[in-house]
Amino acid sequence: MYQKTTICLLGGGQLGRMLLQAGVDLNIEFRVLDHNANAPCASFTNQFVCGSLTDFETVYQFGKNAEIITIEIENVNTNALRCLEQEGVRVFPQPHLIELIQDKRLQKQFYEQNHFPTAPFVLTEKKEDLKNYPDFFPAVHKCGKGGYDGKGVRILETFEDWCKGFELPSVLEKKISIYKEISVIVARNSNGEIKAFPVVECAYHPTQNLVDFLIMPAEIANKLEKRAQEIAIELIQKLELVGILAVEMFIDTQENIFINEVAPRPHNSGHQTIEGNFTSQYAQHLRAILNLPLGNPQLRAPSAMINLLGEPSHEGEAAYIGLEKVLQLDQTYVHLYGKHQTKPYRKMGHITVLGTNRQQLLEKIHFIKGLIKVVSAPNRQVINP
Amino acid sequence: MYQKTTICLLGGGQLGRMLLQAGVDLNIEFRVLDHNANAPCASFTNQFVCGSLTDFETVYQFGKNAEIITIEIENVNTNALRCLEQEGVRVFPQPHLIELIQDKRLQKQFYEQNHFPTAPFVLTEKKEDLKNYPDFFPAVHKCGKGGYDGKGVRILETFEDWCKGFELPSVLEKKISIYKEISVIVARNSNGEIKAFPVVECAYHPTQNLVDFLIMPAEIANKLEKRAQEIAIELIQKLELVGILAVEMFIDTQENIFINEVAPRPHNSGHQTIEGNFTSQYAQHLRAILNLPLGNPQLRAPSAMINLLGEPSHEGEAAYIGLEKVLQLDQTYVHLYGKHQTKPYRKMGHITVLGTNRQQLLEKIHFIKGLIKVVSAPNRQVINP
Repeated sequence: MYQKTTICLLGGGQLGRMLLQAGVDLNIEFRVLDHNANAPCASFTNQFVCGSLTDFETVYQFGKNAEIITIEIENVNTNALRCLEQEGVRVFPQPHLIELIQDKRLQKQFYEQNHFPTAPFVLTEKKEDLKNYPDFFPAVHKCGKGGYDGKGVRILETFEDWCKGFELPSVLEKKISIYKEISVIVARNSNGEIKAFPVVECAYHPTQNLVDFLIMPAEIANKLEKRAQEIAIELIQKLELVGILAVEMFIDTQENIFINEVAPRPHNSGHQTIEGNFTSQYAQHLRAILNLPLGNPQLRAPSAMINLLGEPSHEGEAAYIGLEKVLQLDQTYVHLYGKHQTKPYRKMGHITVLGTNRQQLLEKIHFIKGLIKVVSAPNRQVINP
Repeated sequence: MYQKTTICLLGGGQLGRMLLQAGVDLNIEFRVLDHNANAPCASFTNQFVCGSLTDFETVYQFGKNAEIITIEIENVNTNALRCLEQEGVRVFPQPHLIELIQDKRLQKQFYEQNHFPTAPFVLTEKKEDLKNYPDFFPAVHKCGKGGYDGKGVRILETFEDWCKGFELPSVLEKKISIYKEISVIVARNSNGEIKAFPVVECAYHPTQNLVDFLIMPAEIANKLEKRAQEIAIELIQKLELVGILAVEMFIDTQENIFINEVAPRPHNSGHQTIEGNFTSQYAQHLRAILNLPLGNPQLRAPSAMINLLGEPSHEGEAAYIGLEKVLQLDQTYVHLYGKHQTKPYRKMGHITVLGTNRQQLLEKIHFIKGLIKVVSAPNRQVINP
């Protein structure tokens, strides 16, 4: 028996927006909480609440009469979620797992304790501590809390860079010689059913520490593909997480796989599943948290995705130059996030392309990158009168 | 240059709902007008207006400051739309075309005057008039206005059935010996670009005059497929319609094609395009009315669709028995319409399946029909305690 469901969603960004879009098909209505009244979700629900995701009382009141709560961002008040969970609200992913993942230090310790492969690390409390670990350089220093899209992460190439470290509780990791960066999205429902998406390969932006483009399937040996999926499956099983988990991994030049970090929600590395796979990450997350049978995550066609980032020198009301040209392309899918304002490198949308092989996909995404720009509306008129 | 657009939508039913879902990707926000406060669109927009679609003042006020207006149902006040159009609002499909299509008598005359193939007909004002056309039987009698899903249509097998005709202005058509019922959805933007979807084959419900299932591609000779697409293209061109047009056609036992009727909006016969084609009918309608380049309408995979109808003996709060079983099936996509109440034969959702060939698709949809039922929630507990 299935009836209409209302899900309370913490966070109203683009991930939430695509979750709402997928929820339409399953009669899911969303109540959404976000601090920004113009958040990407705001116009697609009649139950939008403007408020802080990190404030206990706001989150508690928002979720009090909910059947089910989920998140599209980890930076939420988990104490409120723990209370709600105790009062019988289903909260997926579970609050203690959100806490584990919010803190990169706890995350790393969990991998170590449970024998998941991850780069060697030590915990640091302040910058000075780095001086104790000359063997760790070249290293990556990551704040325990609050980092995302490259914020809260610093690359320290040599020991002399120790002074660029964080003064906050952090993790110092040995820098891996990366051959490829990959991600596996895996889903688990309350019945314990688990399904992993194929491995996606992530190319990072040359200057910004965020995804430039993705390609699925990843061009890696079968045994590595299998092993990466196994790691993701073992991890979600060990965590007993309900929902989806994006597991970002490195493959080093010796073909070792290391877990970099995880996100317990739909993730940038799964956007192309909307058109590229039989089930999207968004539909899969909803199935998982509603304890419905998981969908087939397999590839429907090779796909690639590019993030549509705000132009570096533009800030203001968003406008899209060249969108019409992109819309002329076959098997090309534009997803705009409805953000009113563009900023340098802000994620404003993404574009997925389907193709028959990797080479074709790469050509297509490089072509598209030259076609489209997100600018601020007044500047646009200067550039393109 | 492209920026955020707001579309005013007349009608908040399932077609509107899927239009909203497609609009997310193009930064389209929707203001929706519907007489039912719980209409399928109501929970997916923050700009829902409850009011009559047929009242001049309501429609006029709703559309007064709009950039662009479209419809998901033809039964709207076109006088208000004509005023708005004169005041500079873009109204697509154009109001005079909505009027033409609202009235089956005008529609038939248009086909005749412009040499489009359609079943021979005469206009009748009252029941008595039928006695003048003994040669027309077996016949179909159709009310000029207000019919849909089989309402306003009567089959008159023999001349003696004349007394079952309508007392209203109607069309009397010779009944065609139908070999297949097909539909072609065709789109046209303001630039005059036109693209037709492949032909879909419609199987009608054994007792209700509405679609039971669809299958794409239709199993018809290539020349018929080509001809059906040509007719649809010529028709939208002649009408100069902006938007999409669903052209329902009959093929008779002599392989003649006849236009049955058209709908100037997304249509039940195009639901399977969401997963089955590279562009969905919903995305295509939005591209057309925004004068964007039209998308590739070609088949991505053979697909079939079944309407999920309310069980005959059930009325009340909707519940779905067997949905979990359907969700276990691969390449099967459930779309629920969010209608709170089920009624006998009410369209509550649809299910699309993908497959490799017709036989597989037919087996799959017949299997699914046996799995799932839309019932009223209290009765459900009696049936399945």
